Amino acid sequence: MSRFTVAVDAMGGDHAPEAIVSGAIRALRQSSDLEILLAGPADKLNALLQDAQDVQKRISILPANEVISMEDAPMLAVRKKVDSSMVQAVLAVKEGRAQAVVSAGSTGAFLACGMFRLGRIPGVERPALAVLIPGTQKPFLLMDSGANADCQSKYLDQFALMGSVYMKNVVGVADPAVGLVNIGAEAEKGNRLAKEAHERMTAQSSYHFAGNVEARDIPSGAFDVVVADGFTGNVILKYTEGLVGAVMGMIKAEVNTSLRCKIGALLMKPAFRALKHKMDYNSVGGAPLLGVEGAMVKAHGSSGEMAMANAVLQAEKMIRGDIVEKIRDGLTGLVDKMDGGEIV
Amino acid sequence: MSRFTVAVDAMGGDHAPEAIVSGAIRALRQSSDLEILLAGPADKLNALLQDAQDVQKRISILPANEVISMEDAPMLAVRKKVDSSMVQAVLAVKEGRAQAVVSAGSTGAFLACGMFRLGRIPGVERPALAVLIPGTQKPFLLMDSGANADCQSKYLDQFALMGSVYMKNVVGVADPAVGLVNIGAEAEKGNRLAKEAHERMTAQSSYHFAGNVEARDIPSGAFDVVVADGFTGNVILKYTEGLVGAVMGMIKAEVNTSLRCKIGALLMKPAFRALKHKMDYNSVGGAPLLGVEGAMVKAHGSSGEMAMANAVLQAEKMIRGDIVEKIRDGLTGLVDKMDGGEIV
Repeated sequence: MSRFTVAVDAMGGDHAPEAIVSGAIRALRQSSDLEILLAGPADKLNALLQDAQDVQKRISILPANEVISMEDAPMLAVRKKVDSSMVQAVLAVKEGRAQAVVSAGSTGAFLACGMFRLGRIPGVERPALAVLIPGTQKPFLLMDSGANADCQSKYLDQFALMGSVYMKNVVGVADPAVGLVNIGAEAEKGNRLAKEAHERMTAQSSYHFAGNVEARDIPSGAFDVVVADGFTGNVILKYTEGLVGAVMGMIKAEVNTSLRCKIGALLMKPAFRALKHKMDYNSVGGAPLLGVEGAMVKAHGSSGEMAMANAVLQAEKMIRGDIVEKIRDGLTGLVDKMDGGEIV
Repeated sequence: MSRFTVAVDAMGGDHAPEAIVSGAIRALRQSSDLEILLAGPADKLNALLQDAQDVQKRISILPANEVISMEDAPMLAVRKKVDSSMVQAVLAVKEGRAQAVVSAGSTGAFLACGMFRLGRIPGVERPALAVLIPGTQKPFLLMDSGANADCQSKYLDQFALMGSVYMKNVVGVADPAVGLVNIGAEAEKGNRLAKEAHERMTAQSSYHFAGNVEARDIPSGAFDVVVADGFTGNVILKYTEGLVGAVMGMIKAEVNTSLRCKIGALLMKPAFRALKHKMDYNSVGGAPLLGVEGAMVKAHGSSGEMAMANAVLQAEKMIRGDIVEKIRDGLTGLVDKMDGGEIV
């Protein structure tokens, strides 16, 4: 096994196992250091590896005969379905046979796997899901995108640190600017959580806190990491999808009101296509779950071969970037003295 | 004085007093039942009324010689600057000389005026700011759009009721469907606030609760009133503005990459202009502050003549719709028995 072994849940996602396996093969062809552990039923997976002679010696099969479905209650499934492809892939990381794991299966179950199979990095209060969202100038990492509906200010402080470590070491941003989602630019603005988080984030020394970001300015690209509680973060994530779709739909509706506009739209097709591609955060790769003892990437449920390959390569980058170790180091620069606060 | 007298803060807003006064005149020309009390310095305002002979007998001047600026601390200004145009206009409602008040001045000061000069309708926990936002099919009322950063579930229940009363009696929606902003469609999803609010909203009998709305579906037009705490609501409001602007900016940037697209964009100009107009929530009118003892409309700070006229006519509709009385009535159908809960 190489130092860059990624365990892949071959049975998770809408297009499993075919797209998952071909995505894994594609990733292996792109990165010569990479090795892959494919978790799933051996016979099915072997059949899909026929055309991968060139990379076959870097793929091993991790036999797993159960599947966690979208209908399964996450916690229960993670506890009971030990022989599932997802749990087996995660256990491979726990046992040191892989350094990262990728799944396009149930988000809830994957989060539960992270928390209860891998465990948190000591000192991390709550692991969080990070999504890289396209902005006008550059993408930003939204942290937490929905793993933690109820948050305390110390969680937000850690989200900022973890997001910052990821942007620096995986995406390659030299000095990531962290913004705190708030309803005003001034320090004293916001709800209790945001006010207390602002105070903490100002006091720490582990990342570059650039102040509050009003929602209006989120897409501007002035911030590399955008921090919010998981409820607000999830609203931002889903609203991005809904609103971009709505605007596109409204343009389409306007276009259909005149021939002139129809011709214009036809000519503009390449621009719309480029925009659609740019705004599609699923194409950027998967969402890393940060704060657990291993590199975890949640690929989108609808991932095809390309998206899956990207997610695997992203997991490899997380190994190369020593994400887990660097989060551990960064925690020491956060402020602990406010932990007595019971406000939020 | 007629039953439909609207007090107007003539000195609030970026284009005061000129655009405010001409907006008031325009509104008077459109509605023959309307009377207006213009609050501001008599000499200045009289000079602006020269060309309004046709409606002059329906305008009175309410002398006020101070102005509350955007720099003033809201609470302090509302207490100290009694002779300001904003406070005088609000006091006219309190004293029964007008039934509604409109201002394009400081939002914070206007909220403070509502709370401390007019006072809350008995039983209302927190007045809230409502903004009508364009959707793909029809507009929806976002409640609270930012007046209350920290909320309890009983506030949200009341926001739903008040928004519902407004949509029915001012906008004319027969049976407004209320959605609760949440991170999942199921009742058990969400943060503690959303879960408790869902329970309350299901139990009441004053409005039509249609369940949780995921942020992705907010623009769809399936909901007439979208309820959230003021922090989340303000994020949604501001993000709408920022993201629509970002998408338009990205289309523009794509267009400039080829001549073909440039020509297409030129042909599509009418469609873009129509969309821009449709998405501009400022053109819809002002934002009502609901829950106070009087009809209050906050016009956008940048309001010109047309926006101001719309805001005044909207205030008149709020009087006609008996908003205050109907909110009072609706409160009785809300559930009080959960008020012992200390969870949120």
